[in-house]
Amino acid sequence: MTTRVLGIDPGLTRCGIGVVDVERDRRARLVHVGVIRSPADADPGVRLAMIAAGIRVVLDEHAPDVAAVERVFAQHNVASVMGTAQASGVALMLAAERGLPTATHTPSEVKAAITGYGSADKAQVQHMVARVLGLPEAPQPADAADALAIALCHAWRSGAAPAAEALTATPAQRAWAAAEKRSRVARTYVRTPR
Amino acid sequence: MTTRVLGIDPGLTRCGIGVVDVERDRRARLVHVGVIRSPADADPGVRLAMIAAGIRVVLDEHAPDVAAVERVFAQHNVASVMGTAQASGVALMLAAERGLPTATHTPSEVKAAITGYGSADKAQVQHMVARVLGLPEAPQPADAADALAIALCHAWRSGAAPAAEALTATPAQRAWAAAEKRSRVARTYVRTPR
Repeated sequence: MTTRVLGIDPGLTRCGIGVVDVERDRRARLVHVGVIRSPADADPGVRLAMIAAGIRVVLDEHAPDVAAVERVFAQHNVASVMGTAQASGVALMLAAERGLPTATHTPSEVKAAITGYGSADKAQVQHMVARVLGLPEAPQPADAADALAIALCHAWRSGAAPAAEALTATPAQRAWAAAEKRSRVARTYVRTPR
Repeated sequence: MTTRVLGIDPGLTRCGIGVVDVERDRRARLVHVGVIRSPADADPGVRLAMIAAGIRVVLDEHAPDVAAVERVFAQHNVASVMGTAQASGVALMLAAERGLPTATHTPSEVKAAITGYGSADKAQVQHMVARVLGLPEAPQPADAADALAIALCHAWRSGAAPAAEALTATPAQRAWAAAEKRSRVARTYVRTPR
């Protein structure tokens, strides 16, 4: 079974957006990657509308099954964090309106999922994204590669267990993983009026 | 000339929304007030889609000329500030997509505009909102009254000069106000593709 995952690294100046097809055995294929930009001198509402328009194009063209957005923290760069949070809200809303389940992952969850440790640097994450997707080099700019990393992280954390882990898991670990998976499926989507 | 102003006090649990008609001489009339709610146990994307659906209903029914949203600060309650920022992003985006100019105002700007001083408490703001709009009492809950306060603040700060100030302004003050008004008009809206 292939899951098509939309990953978004939210931002007003550069919003990374990527789509990957991920198999249950963790194999992954690049479907789309890009960056949506908006001019810093535009009205905040207009900037968010430009980001929304770009996200809608990708939703329309690639019809992902699920959306994952990087979680924004208030502790980060205060100057830009509010714009980043606003863009993440727009992304989550648009995906939910299409009926997609949505999830957020922290930067360290993404790093841990992709490289094996949560304090990996950006270059290591980008290197692994390129390797997993069989790309000659990491997509540029970094926001584009980050969006793919978020999508891969989500796919791997939510079902496509690593083959090696599956082989070494104890029966208790496998039972816990199965229960956890059932509880995820139970969180069904509520369609809201357009 | 009457300006119809949409005011939004963003939030995920309760999003205050109000519409007022404001005359150039600061007189104002209540058009709509309400609160859009979303359940705390729903998916963040679904919650934002519910808020969006409620905002769209008000945009459709009341066709405001301009939208004002309370500005969110990272320093506030960290537990809820990200959801509040996400809701504000959705509100600004929806208004801009309809072609409305959007603006944000800080809580102290709103308090100063409504009561005359930036450190007024919530009860004072609510009292003045009711008085300005000729209501027997302030709309409940507080988020609804706050949304009206934001709308009134925006109208008064951006054109509808207080009658008393207009009478006492010096020629230089009036020239500055006129130039400032022209520069505002020059910031034209850029329509983005749907």
